Amino acid sequence: MEKFFNPKSVALVGVPRKTGVGAYNNLEILLKYGYKGQIFPINPRAEQICGLRCYSSVLEIPESADLAVIAVGRDRVPAVFDQCCQKGIKRVVIISQGFADGDEQGKQLQEDLAARAKSEGVRIIGPNTLGVYNVYQGFNTGFVDHYKPQRPDPVCMIAQTGVYQAGAKVFSENGFAKAIDIGNACDVDVVDVLEYLENDPDTRVIAVHLEGNKRGKELVRIARRVTIKRPIVILKTGRSAEGARAALSHTGSLVGDDEVFDAAFEKAGVIRVRSNSELQDAIKALVHFPPMNGRKIAVITATGALGIISTDACKDFGLELGPVPPYLPSKILKGLPKWVNLSNPIDIWPIGMISGKMPQVFETVLTDVLDSKDIDAVAVVWVSFKSPLHSDIDFREITARVQRIHKAGKPIAFWFYGDNVEKANKEYGSIAGVACFPTIERAIRGLSFIYRYHRKREEPKADSFDVKVDRLSRDKLVKKGNREKILVGEEAFALLNAYGIPTAPGKVVHKVSEALEAASSLGYPVVCKVSDRNFIHKTEIGAVEINISSEEELKRAFNRLLKIIKNRNNLQERPNILVQKQIRGHELLLGLKRDPCFGMVLVCGQGGIYTEIYKDTARALTPVSLREAQGMLSELKLFPILKGIRGQRGVDLDQIASAICRLSALAEDIDGLMEVDINPFMVNSSGSWAVDARFIW
Amino acid sequence: MEKFFNPKSVALVGVPRKTGVGAYNNLEILLKYGYKGQIFPINPRAEQICGLRCYSSVLEIPESADLAVIAVGRDRVPAVFDQCCQKGIKRVVIISQGFADGDEQGKQLQEDLAARAKSEGVRIIGPNTLGVYNVYQGFNTGFVDHYKPQRPDPVCMIAQTGVYQAGAKVFSENGFAKAIDIGNACDVDVVDVLEYLENDPDTRVIAVHLEGNKRGKELVRIARRVTIKRPIVILKTGRSAEGARAALSHTGSLVGDDEVFDAAFEKAGVIRVRSNSELQDAIKALVHFPPMNGRKIAVITATGALGIISTDACKDFGLELGPVPPYLPSKILKGLPKWVNLSNPIDIWPIGMISGKMPQVFETVLTDVLDSKDIDAVAVVWVSFKSPLHSDIDFREITARVQRIHKAGKPIAFWFYGDNVEKANKEYGSIAGVACFPTIERAIRGLSFIYRYHRKREEPKADSFDVKVDRLSRDKLVKKGNREKILVGEEAFALLNAYGIPTAPGKVVHKVSEALEAASSLGYPVVCKVSDRNFIHKTEIGAVEINISSEEELKRAFNRLLKIIKNRNNLQERPNILVQKQIRGHELLLGLKRDPCFGMVLVCGQGGIYTEIYKDTARALTPVSLREAQGMLSELKLFPILKGIRGQRGVDLDQIASAICRLSALAEDIDGLMEVDINPFMVNSSGSWAVDARFIW
Repeated sequence: MEKFFNPKSVALVGVPRKTGVGAYNNLEILLKYGYKGQIFPINPRAEQICGLRCYSSVLEIPESADLAVIAVGRDRVPAVFDQCCQKGIKRVVIISQGFADGDEQGKQLQEDLAARAKSEGVRIIGPNTLGVYNVYQGFNTGFVDHYKPQRPDPVCMIAQTGVYQAGAKVFSENGFAKAIDIGNACDVDVVDVLEYLENDPDTRVIAVHLEGNKRGKELVRIARRVTIKRPIVILKTGRSAEGARAALSHTGSLVGDDEVFDAAFEKAGVIRVRSNSELQDAIKALVHFPPMNGRKIAVITATGALGIISTDACKDFGLELGPVPPYLPSKILKGLPKWVNLSNPIDIWPIGMISGKMPQVFETVLTDVLDSKDIDAVAVVWVSFKSPLHSDIDFREITARVQRIHKAGKPIAFWFYGDNVEKANKEYGSIAGVACFPTIERAIRGLSFIYRYHRKREEPKADSFDVKVDRLSRDKLVKKGNREKILVGEEAFALLNAYGIPTAPGKVVHKVSEALEAASSLGYPVVCKVSDRNFIHKTEIGAVEINISSEEELKRAFNRLLKIIKNRNNLQERPNILVQKQIRGHELLLGLKRDPCFGMVLVCGQGGIYTEIYKDTARALTPVSLREAQGMLSELKLFPILKGIRGQRGVDLDQIASAICRLSALAEDIDGLMEVDINPFMVNSSGSWAVDARFIW
Repeated sequence: MEKFFNPKSVALVGVPRKTGVGAYNNLEILLKYGYKGQIFPINPRAEQICGLRCYSSVLEIPESADLAVIAVGRDRVPAVFDQCCQKGIKRVVIISQGFADGDEQGKQLQEDLAARAKSEGVRIIGPNTLGVYNVYQGFNTGFVDHYKPQRPDPVCMIAQTGVYQAGAKVFSENGFAKAIDIGNACDVDVVDVLEYLENDPDTRVIAVHLEGNKRGKELVRIARRVTIKRPIVILKTGRSAEGARAALSHTGSLVGDDEVFDAAFEKAGVIRVRSNSELQDAIKALVHFPPMNGRKIAVITATGALGIISTDACKDFGLELGPVPPYLPSKILKGLPKWVNLSNPIDIWPIGMISGKMPQVFETVLTDVLDSKDIDAVAVVWVSFKSPLHSDIDFREITARVQRIHKAGKPIAFWFYGDNVEKANKEYGSIAGVACFPTIERAIRGLSFIYRYHRKREEPKADSFDVKVDRLSRDKLVKKGNREKILVGEEAFALLNAYGIPTAPGKVVHKVSEALEAASSLGYPVVCKVSDRNFIHKTEIGAVEINISSEEELKRAFNRLLKIIKNRNNLQERPNILVQKQIRGHELLLGLKRDPCFGMVLVCGQGGIYTEIYKDTARALTPVSLREAQGMLSELKLFPILKGIRGQRGVDLDQIASAICRLSALAEDIDGLMEVDINPFMVNSSGSWAVDARFIW
């Protein structure tokens, strides 16, 4: 990747002769951007462009180049690419559009290019990209003359669009130091760039705009490693079903289920944001703030109303208001009317107004909360006016001094209101450890990002959960599953049992006499259901009979099921009916689904009729550790019921967590498994049991 | 109120002698603000301030004044207020702090002032306020020298803090034309101001920051009337401050203060926002945009990636992407490569780049979507660069021309990225019907506000639902309820029946023989439960027996309940046990709760053990029309199950809606009723029945 960001020489293929307004001439832009390396412009119809000698083709250039940038019509790209290969150019940026972003033919062209690149050992960025820029090297492959900051923020932006390059200033006050648009990502993808950035000295924060990614498992593995050194914040787009459709027609990238991305980002420990405002705030917080060791903040405000709003925001973003430092009241309330009181949010306006010492009050309060071991960060709501009448409450110097004394060890987030906000944002924002946000809510959200990042970073490593497997039984069943593509009924139960996942006692029978015998040995009440791979959605067609509490009822139920089987499946000679002990308790669902991008996703949550209504489920990529399993359970809204409320006994949570780990071990073990559904997984205070299960290969 | 906003003369009590930096001298500010009326500064220790003659007390001023502004220490306020009354001043703004915002004594002082004002016919704004400003009159009671716009936005801001006055520019680009800080609102409250603004020619949009309000019903009534003429947007704060009230019923615990405000704002038809960013966007949309008649938008973008983000945002904010105008492709795709295609979001970049006619393409697309009857508004993602190389894609003039031709009939929301965004925002933002937002998501959210406002405005009037009441029965039961403060069991059922709300068939019995008799006439299975006002939470203590399907089981169940009664209540001689027909179906909850501010709130939603877990409930202030009742049901996540999914039959939704209207009629009828809990309210395909009910006075 280094040669993409910092090439010593570059061949620009397809430089237009036209320059100036509306030309989008990337040579002109590159020169303006201050690139000092060797440039080989290629245009067979021009002698010179921007004062540089032109070559008629890549083959003509006097030496090889570190990098080629191709911006010709899509149909001419393959030929130019071949010339690059011939010339020994190992890095190519394809600006041209009309590949997977265009039509089927473009998609095929793109696949051919990727294959050719692989066999030639050439790396491609794009197609459909602005390429890269690197402010430090004055290097820029794009055709847009955007802002080149003098002192860029130490951020590298990875995107699937040029918007974040052209609009860098919108997302980071001083622009990004480096940016890359991976476009259709036919070769270089987000994983490659993350790996490169892991040890990039120019980059302290990595921001990512992601539409999709094919190498899901690698993304999780690499991001997890990199984010410990440099925070990664990701805006994943295409969340809605409609959005996902638009993604298919745009870059042809693979957009998975949005919840799977959630699980992947959780596993990787990266910060996910859901809008461009959040992206702005997260970048700002990660660039400016020192670590935040706990969730307790102090709010210093010029008004009680904003104190209330801050309190709302703390709750919304998972932060807490810490205690007022114990000696603070005695320092600043002396001599004031008794009605002036102090709590957090700390409203300093009446104190400053009545005492006539607003600046001193501010300095004392800021110092004390930064000194307090019970306060991890500070949010300040303050005013900024143009009027010289209010120059006494410009606290920039105080803030800078106090932060200097405290070595900027804790984050301070400001929100300014008034008519001079832009100036205040600039001036206060340049103090170490300080950042200014456009509203108080966003200031507090900004703090929450830095808290989340450092908490995630310090999470203990995953524990291991040892699962003893009955390999003999497993191998036999997997073999059958591989062959038949589905396992249900007793075989599905046996496979769960092989991994130590308990199943409801029961027996598959074929005749009513066998059913009666089974029930009497299981004990009433029992459940009867059709156990047949042709009956997948049993409840919908009435193929499940519950609450059977006598022989009479069992006979009736058995005959009803027989009728259903015959109506549906005339050829069936030996009906398979499962007689099962009826277990009372809570219906959960456990399941696995293979995501084409991220591999196995384990799901647990509310089972039964409410599954789809309340979608109260937690997801994790396998392997799932015991701590993760416990975390999944506690994430459920259902969790209080599982723990036990309103005088009801709780269920055995440890057993459920253990079943999750066992299911995870199963997922890791069995290649080619596509889906597992355990629904319901009944849980009560004495245990947990799979009551119905299905494996699909 | 007119005299508050536009007084001919004003007495300023407590003007400091000091002026200049840090003086917060409200006389100095008022003169600077350009007030042309008569000013009487009052300070017994000064001859002159700012060149104006000072008076030693209100009593000394030569004539009366339209308004007095009091800014003295809180303990001196009552005396000054009395002098104002003596002098015949009918409008008073009390700036001073330390009243209900301070301590108990301050609260008492405030109550005394309010009472005195009432008896004297004087209106008070405050205490603890910056008071009012009115840019058009150069009038400003505050002590902060904030921005006075030349051409303010036609917005009046009502707040319980001065933040929105001092920070007006943060919330509306050109500042507010008028603003009022009602402070502690001891007299003038938000309702008074809304009434005044109903016909205020200076105001087109009303923005409100609200912490609380005592006159809830009036707020709903007046806001509902005013918002038809001028949109009202409210930021209600203090969401997380939950009332720690002991809840006697599920309904009580389900309806927090914040949910009641939701129901109130819904009833009033005002737009609620939840953060200051939303407030900014809503004000901007309401100030700049013409009505939006439907939810269909077109997105014009410079990049496919932003198209995807726009699609996500449409889903988040309840808008839809409309169809591409049918003749548009033939107009702009002619002669282009086949891979260039057109869908909505409309990515014009490849079209403009390849054709070399970006401005014409933009103009054609914008014209066509504005012409389309299937498009109600437009969102545009475009670039803005400082570089002269890109002056060809500055579309301000095109946008202005196209809007002029279309008489600015549809809203256009822009988001600009690039390095020249501020300038673009200013220039495009001055075009009629156009507003610029800081991100594309916020642009689309801005459109959603204008859509919500006009949809709300055009909702049909509430229909009436005629409820026949058995008055004789009702009166008898209400009398008893008033006396005993609670009705349960058969009496509660009888009161529901009096309003035509069906209840599960059953009988209260005292002996096992009566129970057997009742069950045989009801038909098994039956339910048995303790019916006694001392057993409120029956499930928790096992005082409900279900699934009783034989005489044997009934006897056992009856005896178990007897034991529970005896254990708990030794004195009980005649046990009341309800034998009820067991109804299978879905458990709902219906309830009422009297809110101290807004009156009766009706709740319906998921009943049973999931009530508190999923909080799947809808709320409305009574009276609830049939249309509102249907709306409440369709709002529930549960709604698909009620309608019938997965092969299950749905329930009788009309019957439930009718029960809601009947319960609403009951709420309106019975004075002093505090809470009603119908839980469960069982529903299935053949009907609906209250199975347990409780009335609390």
